[in-house]
Amino acid sequence: MGALVVPSGARIMERCEALARCSEQPDGLTRVYLSPEQRAANALVLGWMQEAGMSARLDAAGNAVGRYEGDRPGLPCLMLGSHLDTVRDAGRYDGMLGVVCGIECVAALSSRNRRLPFALEVVGFADEEGVRFNATLLGSRAVAGTFDRANLDRADREGITMREAMRSFGLDPDAIGQAARRRQDLLAYAELHIEQGPVLEEEGLPVGVVTAINGGNRFSVELTGMAGHAGTVPMGLRRDALAAAAECVMAVELIAGSERELVGTVGKIEALPGAINVIPGRVRFSVDVRAPTDAQRERAAEAIRGAFADIARRRQVTLDLQLLWEAKTAPCASWLQDQIGAAIAAENIGVRRLPSGAGHDGMAMIAIADVGMLFVRCKDGISHNPAEAITEADAGTAARAFLRFIEHFRARHG
Amino acid sequence: MGALVVPSGARIMERCEALARCSEQPDGLTRVYLSPEQRAANALVLGWMQEAGMSARLDAAGNAVGRYEGDRPGLPCLMLGSHLDTVRDAGRYDGMLGVVCGIECVAALSSRNRRLPFALEVVGFADEEGVRFNATLLGSRAVAGTFDRANLDRADREGITMREAMRSFGLDPDAIGQAARRRQDLLAYAELHIEQGPVLEEEGLPVGVVTAINGGNRFSVELTGMAGHAGTVPMGLRRDALAAAAECVMAVELIAGSERELVGTVGKIEALPGAINVIPGRVRFSVDVRAPTDAQRERAAEAIRGAFADIARRRQVTLDLQLLWEAKTAPCASWLQDQIGAAIAAENIGVRRLPSGAGHDGMAMIAIADVGMLFVRCKDGISHNPAEAITEADAGTAARAFLRFIEHFRARHG
Repeated sequence: MGALVVPSGARIMERCEALARCSEQPDGLTRVYLSPEQRAANALVLGWMQEAGMSARLDAAGNAVGRYEGDRPGLPCLMLGSHLDTVRDAGRYDGMLGVVCGIECVAALSSRNRRLPFALEVVGFADEEGVRFNATLLGSRAVAGTFDRANLDRADREGITMREAMRSFGLDPDAIGQAARRRQDLLAYAELHIEQGPVLEEEGLPVGVVTAINGGNRFSVELTGMAGHAGTVPMGLRRDALAAAAECVMAVELIAGSERELVGTVGKIEALPGAINVIPGRVRFSVDVRAPTDAQRERAAEAIRGAFADIARRRQVTLDLQLLWEAKTAPCASWLQDQIGAAIAAENIGVRRLPSGAGHDGMAMIAIADVGMLFVRCKDGISHNPAEAITEADAGTAARAFLRFIEHFRARHG
Repeated sequence: MGALVVPSGARIMERCEALARCSEQPDGLTRVYLSPEQRAANALVLGWMQEAGMSARLDAAGNAVGRYEGDRPGLPCLMLGSHLDTVRDAGRYDGMLGVVCGIECVAALSSRNRRLPFALEVVGFADEEGVRFNATLLGSRAVAGTFDRANLDRADREGITMREAMRSFGLDPDAIGQAARRRQDLLAYAELHIEQGPVLEEEGLPVGVVTAINGGNRFSVELTGMAGHAGTVPMGLRRDALAAAAECVMAVELIAGSERELVGTVGKIEALPGAINVIPGRVRFSVDVRAPTDAQRERAAEAIRGAFADIARRRQVTLDLQLLWEAKTAPCASWLQDQIGAAIAAENIGVRRLPSGAGHDGMAMIAIADVGMLFVRCKDGISHNPAEAITEADAGTAARAFLRFIEHFRARHG
């Protein structure tokens, strides 16, 4: 290891491979909270942390936490985090890449015996995806001190509660509060993550600066018109729920396309009764809207509600629109964006700022720290899929930029 | 019965009720080809025919056929037909009303000892809906001489073939050709039927003249774009198959609405993968187009194909469009339309000409006779449903207009 030039893209890729072998199934990757696979992944990560010169431990929530002291012990830290759990049939980089790169950056400092005027911590959060207990960000919420103890009663699909699962894992559910960190312990929270979208690839850039973790609204919509015989009801006498829904789908697309960085999606649709020769009397569909600012998102949600109401009124169908879910934007701190951007520029890479459409641990960590994120280009924007891919070159470039950001990091009030 | 004023709306309604009791299930109406329920319905109908002064028999296909001679025996007939089978969970008027009204008109003539210069035949076709063997118009095709003997090998859902079912019913499948009638035996084929649509009700008219039994095309369409994360793929980089499908649905509506009496419907739609947070990568939907002329229908089908191809090209999604089914228009003969219209006008009713969007036995009978149809208003355009309804007053009015048409009937070449 002494001869290895760190950060090493090759070692990052190897370690992502090694983590991918900690999986429920041999021919794919699934690793959920408090599972034997998580225990195996934690063992690898804690070992790498120690190898990189960190003290390493599992916290009360099962998060893997490594600490590399600054130029004197006990200084507040710049926390570098991402998650170690996965969705079902996942890719190898979503989450893990950030943990592995964080360790790799510390290894680079450590190999040069370099200490910074602040501590570094690398955290591998034990649950971000929320697959097992159907509640996301359990690991980072524990660290942020915003963990809702009601989650302990949530059961997985085999009926095992989170409380029971923690005990089986060797953790004390009553002690989960001990995972919480204080605001004064953190100078900032920074995360390196794959983009999970196509923007950087489209623009030929290996990395980018995240401006915000987008907030979102999800709606369930039901339109009720009048079913009828497809042959006998003249067009002018129809109250076709699917024609109305189609107009709504177009309206979502139009509204979302009218502002930069706003996105809107209809992902599910069902027409009833659903026969080739019957005019649909009822249609249900979903709407997902995300935006980098709450104002933009609320404006878009309002525009969509208004457009749907107009369409329903004009077509004499009834509209039932329910808000299923709402998440506020977690903006990335501008001073962290600037420092990440400067590190990227110093690597002679164009600085692209872009929002994150997907959720990340920063959504929880923002409760106790300013948040910054660096995105890494991924292939075809594909994520949450075994086809998720990055290049070794990009892994190395991203880790170098992230290391440069760390080495030049200056706390806002430091 | 001597005191009854015929045609009688009350008796028509009673007889439709009586037929509705010949059903598979006690709390609804289902009566399929070659069933015990059909035998019971036939027994009623043959009895009513005889009561109305007709000779009555089952033909080789199981159709109930009554004949009322003209002013001398053996004259060619004006055939009055409709069907006695039903869809599952059917209404009480679709088909039966025409048979019952035909008998009622003959009863009116018979009660006055009136003979016409042509014979009348009333036919209750044994299969029009095609529920049991999944092939429609089996009764009328047998009469028209266009019955496809391959149908004898079709099996019902219990695996009983039509051939076996005919034998069990007491019919000889090898003799089905004997049900065929010759063109010279028929002066015309006339059918009274509920509209199964909302036009007459909308216009406040009890009856109308059918211009054509519309032809139709049915397509199955699949659009393939690119699935993606609903949060991370900017609007400008999407190839959203559902947004493309929505535009296609709007195009069908626009094209169908651009010409009078053309209708187009998307009745089924499915978006894949179908998750609230995933951009649909693939969408399948159906298109049903019907028009009163083949030229109009073909023009519309071509316009729809063209619009879909444009949408697919512009949105970079692939289009796969398959023709599932095609039926030519069965136009109603203008001389019969005129005679039916004159009878309606003589009843002091506005003459509304309208196409039939649904299929009817005339589609088969047109092979051996000119076809005319009289439509009767039904409630809310509802059919193929237990809620199918007509009023007793409309039943009486329709039968009177139909009788007037019959009494004043003049064969085209007569």
